[in-house]
Amino acid sequence: MTKHIAIITDFGMDDTYLGMMKAAIAGISPEARIIDLTHAIPPGDVQRAAFEAWRVRSYLPPETVLLAVVDPGVGTKRRAIALKLPGLYCVGPDNGLFSFLLYSTNKYKAAELVNPHYQLQTISNTFHGRDIFAPAAAYLAQDIPLEDFGPISQELVRLPDPLLEDLGAGSIQGEIMQSDHFGNLITSIGRFDNTDDDLSFKPWIPPFSARTIIAQDYEVILPQGNVVPLGRTFGDAPKGEALAYIGSSGLLEIAINGGDAAKTLNLTPGDEIIFKLKG
Amino acid sequence: MTKHIAIITDFGMDDTYLGMMKAAIAGISPEARIIDLTHAIPPGDVQRAAFEAWRVRSYLPPETVLLAVVDPGVGTKRRAIALKLPGLYCVGPDNGLFSFLLYSTNKYKAAELVNPHYQLQTISNTFHGRDIFAPAAAYLAQDIPLEDFGPISQELVRLPDPLLEDLGAGSIQGEIMQSDHFGNLITSIGRFDNTDDDLSFKPWIPPFSARTIIAQDYEVILPQGNVVPLGRTFGDAPKGEALAYIGSSGLLEIAINGGDAAKTLNLTPGDEIIFKLKG
Amino acid sequence: MTKHIAIITDFGMDDTYLGMMKAAIAGISPEARIIDLTHAIPPGDVQRAAFEAWRVRSYLPPETVLLAVVDPGVGTKRRAIALKLPGLYCVGPDNGLFSFLLYSTNKYKAAELVNPHYQLQTISNTFHGRDIFAPAAAYLAQDIPLEDFGPISQELVRLPDPLLEDLGAGSIQGEIMQSDHFGNLITSIGRFDNTDDDLSFKPWIPPFSARTIIAQDYEVILPQGNVVPLGRTFGDAPKGEALAYIGSSGLLEIAINGGDAAKTLNLTPGDEIIFKLKG
Repeated sequence: MTKHIAIITDFGMDDTYLGMMKAAIAGISPEARIIDLTHAIPPGDVQRAAFEAWRVRSYLPPETVLLAVVDPGVGTKRRAIALKLPGLYCVGPDNGLFSFLLYSTNKYKAAELVNPHYQLQTISNTFHGRDIFAPAAAYLAQDIPLEDFGPISQELVRLPDPLLEDLGAGSIQGEIMQSDHFGNLITSIGRFDNTDDDLSFKPWIPPFSARTIIAQDYEVILPQGNVVPLGRTFGDAPKGEALAYIGSSGLLEIAINGGDAAKTLNLTPGDEIIFKLKG
Repeated sequence: MTKHIAIITDFGMDDTYLGMMKAAIAGISPEARIIDLTHAIPPGDVQRAAFEAWRVRSYLPPETVLLAVVDPGVGTKRRAIALKLPGLYCVGPDNGLFSFLLYSTNKYKAAELVNPHYQLQTISNTFHGRDIFAPAAAYLAQDIPLEDFGPISQELVRLPDPLLEDLGAGSIQGEIMQSDHFGNLITSIGRFDNTDDDLSFKPWIPPFSARTIIAQDYEVILPQGNVVPLGRTFGDAPKGEALAYIGSSGLLEIAINGGDAAKTLNLTPGDEIIFKLKG
Repeated sequence: MTKHIAIITDFGMDDTYLGMMKAAIAGISPEARIIDLTHAIPPGDVQRAAFEAWRVRSYLPPETVLLAVVDPGVGTKRRAIALKLPGLYCVGPDNGLFSFLLYSTNKYKAAELVNPHYQLQTISNTFHGRDIFAPAAAYLAQDIPLEDFGPISQELVRLPDPLLEDLGAGSIQGEIMQSDHFGNLITSIGRFDNTDDDLSFKPWIPPFSARTIIAQDYEVILPQGNVVPLGRTFGDAPKGEALAYIGSSGLLEIAINGGDAAKTLNLTPGDEIIFKLKG
């Protein structure tokens, strides 16, 4: 079976670091297929990478190896791990990168990457992405058992939960998680399954408590107090007007039709918004 | 036979949208080979994407699937299509993206992408690139017949023709189409086959009327009236000087040897220029 | 055996030039695997590309074809070459791109790429990357012998050596070669094999004269006279403080823990630094 290695880093595309990682993989598992997820995580922003990993997860082919290297603590005592989840392997530093993937399962185990047999011969102090993580991903793609990499544990570093709070009276509070290339703002409020006018709300952050929401009854309140209506897609708002909608990850998003919401509304990650029952 | 899927989008490389599309393809057709053409089309700039599709076309391996997603109307009533041309499949929204590819043939047919069997299970309102177009490209790479995707038609949305006009007396008027990474300006004037000093001019925009032009007799007039001489390559002009030449797509281009013509000459897409018989 | 083609260019990722090169390769050698090393070499900066080629070299799988296109002299009389080194093929213009790879061996031979059978049918004057170099790389990946491409020679254009000078009294003078995405500064001083506290210094620029250095005894002097201590990794310095360390290429680097050294220290390529015995 073709094995895929999907890569997230904060390396950018300007240096040859990513190329060195791919070369290291190619030297070990030339048949593995690489999927570049993103290399534009802001330097050291572990939460952003964890959120992207969570967003892409359901689209990855079965048994993909997710290789995530956002590693500000490289060369210090933070552990290097490989993690097995149902249908997915993860490789990276144990700094919380895989926190959000663990929300939906407790069937996981992690190996500490200490077996030098599955590392490059020389290990630098500052680039474990190439010397430890890329080789581990390449060997996992060859079905080397997790146990061979090092001691197994379930204790992993976890990030704090993003904001997703029930305010009562049908209102839900969340935060801006990030803006994308188009300036669309992705929030922590979701997941929603969009079935016509009824939205099935299944919180992605535990504890779970699913419910059904009638879309027409809702609107979004921005930090400055502005009210943004809920639509289905960009074209539902007049050109240049803001709207909220259930985005492609099942999360509430805010956009401006034909415009850049992040710039125009001046919202940044961490800003709080409310998904509110009208009236 | 190896099947190639060549991708053009306006997604940028900073988000995981492109990665999700590639993951969706990998889940369906793991053996297909991806060729990234560009993901830096300015957001929503359908003409730019159509022009890039036209420029790369003759270099794509036979039976490549060209997956183009510049889709400002996503989720509205614009159709999703797969298009069969001689030796090439195209997949994307029916918004004119493939207009310029249709200049050279009327042997084409398009299917509307409505068969849910060839889409992801859940279709978002804002990301048909991942949910509809990427799967269609992946299934086309598996030789699923066009007819299976949906009803066939030949009526497609077309973009207006770029400017390419015969002014008489041997002069041809055109426009700046785009500038590239080096600041070289690519115009709509062409195609030329460069055979030594004779240029064989075969207009790429119908109606066609081919002729032979003697290169030494020509020069280029910029909007401000400056005259730029015609050369063969950058090194034919002194360092820092402007020249026109037949570029690598067979179109007239304007560059500054060792410099950035777009910035220095202050020209942008849509600016009109004249390819003129001297004297 | 899977053949890899690793690509370095100054094309950026915004145009379709790189995509055209990959399409040309795919048309000839669909089974070859592409490794993107970097496409962000500053336009025309041959030394930077040569340095990146040297840095990645030891990570490339055996018999990789390194396709390097930084070609300000395209269309002039500069030669197009394919170069065979032990375990590596190189393809590109003969303008010094492979200079630093030749430091470690004299077992090499180069062919001038003149055989039209291994080029695209139409050769533009301004894009030999697509028309000559990409096809040559694709045919080399098919084990076409070097001799078939054109006449063999050993005379190649060489770049000047970067600065790496023994100042006596244990001090070594070098220069900043480049800064990376994180603002870390990579110098010409190395290579060092890091074995605990002893650094084995084996100059990468001939003439070679290896020696052992005791890391604790050394510090780095910046052009303005500031002294930077030598550490092992970023976390060895307090947050916001500068440190020097042996980087992942075995070269001395300068970083600021959690910061951007290039910006904060205001150092650029060519600036001279000294690796100095303390006291």
